[in-house]
Amino acid sequence: MYKINENYLKLPGSYLFSTIGKKVAAYTAEHPEKQIIRLGIGDVTQPLAPAILEAMHKAVDEMGAAGTFRGYAPDLGYEFLRNAIAECDYQQRGADIQADEIFVSDGAKCDSGNIQEIFSLDNRIAVCDPVYPVYVDTNAMAGRAGNYDPETEMWSNVIYMPCLAENGFVPELPKKTPDLIYLCFPNNPTGSAVTKDQLQVWVDYARRAGAVIIYDAAYEAYISEENVPHTIYECAGARTCAIELKSFSKNAGFTGVRLGYTVVPKELKCGETALHSLWARRHGTKYNGAPYIVQRAGEAVYSEAGRIQLKEQVDYYMRNARTIREGLKDAGYTVSGGVNAPYIWLKTPGQMTAWEFFDHLLEEAGVVGTPGSGFGPGGEGYFRLTAFGSYENTVAALERIRKI
Amino acid sequence: MYKINENYLKLPGSYLFSTIGKKVAAYTAEHPEKQIIRLGIGDVTQPLAPAILEAMHKAVDEMGAAGTFRGYAPDLGYEFLRNAIAECDYQQRGADIQADEIFVSDGAKCDSGNIQEIFSLDNRIAVCDPVYPVYVDTNAMAGRAGNYDPETEMWSNVIYMPCLAENGFVPELPKKTPDLIYLCFPNNPTGSAVTKDQLQVWVDYARRAGAVIIYDAAYEAYISEENVPHTIYECAGARTCAIELKSFSKNAGFTGVRLGYTVVPKELKCGETALHSLWARRHGTKYNGAPYIVQRAGEAVYSEAGRIQLKEQVDYYMRNARTIREGLKDAGYTVSGGVNAPYIWLKTPGQMTAWEFFDHLLEEAGVVGTPGSGFGPGGEGYFRLTAFGSYENTVAALERIRKI
Repeated sequence: MYKINENYLKLPGSYLFSTIGKKVAAYTAEHPEKQIIRLGIGDVTQPLAPAILEAMHKAVDEMGAAGTFRGYAPDLGYEFLRNAIAECDYQQRGADIQADEIFVSDGAKCDSGNIQEIFSLDNRIAVCDPVYPVYVDTNAMAGRAGNYDPETEMWSNVIYMPCLAENGFVPELPKKTPDLIYLCFPNNPTGSAVTKDQLQVWVDYARRAGAVIIYDAAYEAYISEENVPHTIYECAGARTCAIELKSFSKNAGFTGVRLGYTVVPKELKCGETALHSLWARRHGTKYNGAPYIVQRAGEAVYSEAGRIQLKEQVDYYMRNARTIREGLKDAGYTVSGGVNAPYIWLKTPGQMTAWEFFDHLLEEAGVVGTPGSGFGPGGEGYFRLTAFGSYENTVAALERIRKI
Repeated sequence: MYKINENYLKLPGSYLFSTIGKKVAAYTAEHPEKQIIRLGIGDVTQPLAPAILEAMHKAVDEMGAAGTFRGYAPDLGYEFLRNAIAECDYQQRGADIQADEIFVSDGAKCDSGNIQEIFSLDNRIAVCDPVYPVYVDTNAMAGRAGNYDPETEMWSNVIYMPCLAENGFVPELPKKTPDLIYLCFPNNPTGSAVTKDQLQVWVDYARRAGAVIIYDAAYEAYISEENVPHTIYECAGARTCAIELKSFSKNAGFTGVRLGYTVVPKELKCGETALHSLWARRHGTKYNGAPYIVQRAGEAVYSEAGRIQLKEQVDYYMRNARTIREGLKDAGYTVSGGVNAPYIWLKTPGQMTAWEFFDHLLEEAGVVGTPGSGFGPGGEGYFRLTAFGSYENTVAALERIRKI
């Protein structure tokens, strides 16, 4: 008789966004006249930029003609896209990454969930707290997280690194030595960033400890300050200890288009084994490449027109971020994030729990955000608002918040 | 110090298509004047059908307008596509499958590689021999296959079910009891099919043995005979013991578009746990949905125009299959497949090994096929040709083969 993967049964329910949905539905049923403004989920709202649409239409036409039709893509991605990424995202920034160290995928969620497969099941992971839940859940599914304690909301074999106001939402080096360290900067959910010096400390630590950093740079496009690194490979030695994950979701609005990539430098080795060859094997065995049309869309992100249009899109969202950040500050809230990231992280007022504040904001202002506790116990007492709405809605939401 | 997943190191090299590539390159370098015809890899060559192109252009336009832009897709797929699949691929065939039992994905390769994750690591798999390598390799990566013996080319913990001329390339029930049974009909690589009665025997066996059948129906569109089931859910009791994988690659030419789906009936339970909920959790945690544009393309597959155009495409390939099959028979080869599948499986003549025949065919006819031994030891002495080339090339290839 077959058996299931029992690790799945250890997972706590994933109720964050479903609970939000239910609460909003209940409120709307009671107050059908009220217009809800959603600044909760991290999904973009601006349409795709013209340069991207043009590239996609062209690629669709190519798929319709015998001479230009494309079947299976190269496992690791088309050269045209890998070259553009290597040049624009790395070499132009002085980071030594080559096209054949880039693995194109259908998004950073998949990559951040799948990357753990190439590591031993008895490796121990360290994560920030609060954290994007995929890192922990996918390790729990594999059996690497130990057991879940519903009281503390923590897994027995995970090293949690608190990110709180006291440390500027940047974790301190852990006391126990991890094997895999998940870092995400600019951070989801806190919106905080690290300086290059701060990140160098982590690279140096990983090399000393014999750990691999899995660096999620999904929000890199929102960096506005000078001393914030755009890639971990700006740090000396990162080629021997870090894997980087990137997404096209937030810089180019590809949440419904699906494109991302992972960088595995060839110098990253465990003894004689290059992690590059393991990840290549995983890609080749379990994946069949991102759609040609989507890879052409990705290439357009790096075109001259694409860059200009997408900078405007990021600027649009960052105006929202400033609006939220400044508006909340004016209203007396303690706020961080929103400078190098599209997320604003606010301290709930007057000892309210994150869910109490959620209810308060929904009932008094008709504004929906995300309770920080949904991202782990370290998020209790905090609340996330996102800059991905329309400017008009963002301004309206802040006016409502100011009034309560 | 972190460690890698040592199971990856047990995998034998994946040299089949790279060795073919090297041999072809060497031959071309020596004979630059010879025109090679490739009937080896299972990739399609016909451009996308007009109905699909139209749907994709429309969806691209939608992504470019604020009012119709789509961000994150529902984890399990858009309703419009799941409804079309449930109705056209199942309910119209009398198979009781509902839309919410369908999980849309970016292709059957990913699904067939990922599905093992929801099962226990100590489950034992059974596979046909020869077989599509992904089933075995992904279980080996997870640690479920035991150790690989380079002599026998077999894994110690895998149950191999020979598919040979003697059994009509349909496996007999295994002597040892497996937990997971991978079946693919119409079959890659042998091109063989099962009757509904034959498949019912497997469903009954799985229910008795407490096993799950993972049924890969990627080539279903090529079925031409009456008594061959289009889905395993045509068999009584399959809802309690079978998962079905489907692809849009071969019926609609989506190898470079990427779309597939998995069916997990809600009645398929291990004790109290529905596998549906485990797969839903995996999808929700590690996957972000297929692109909106691609899901609209998938919907067009089921439109009236799409059905007509794709039937023509399948007919085109099946004319190639007949050409190969009849041509080889006329030339004195022992041939199977090619009636309900786009693959023709031939016995190598005169005790040649599969690779010897590969060299022979390349050197004497300039035709490239796939050695059967690349699909497992049971494929030794066999050779696969595919119907996915152009008709002109297929005819030319057969003329050349007849001459040698």
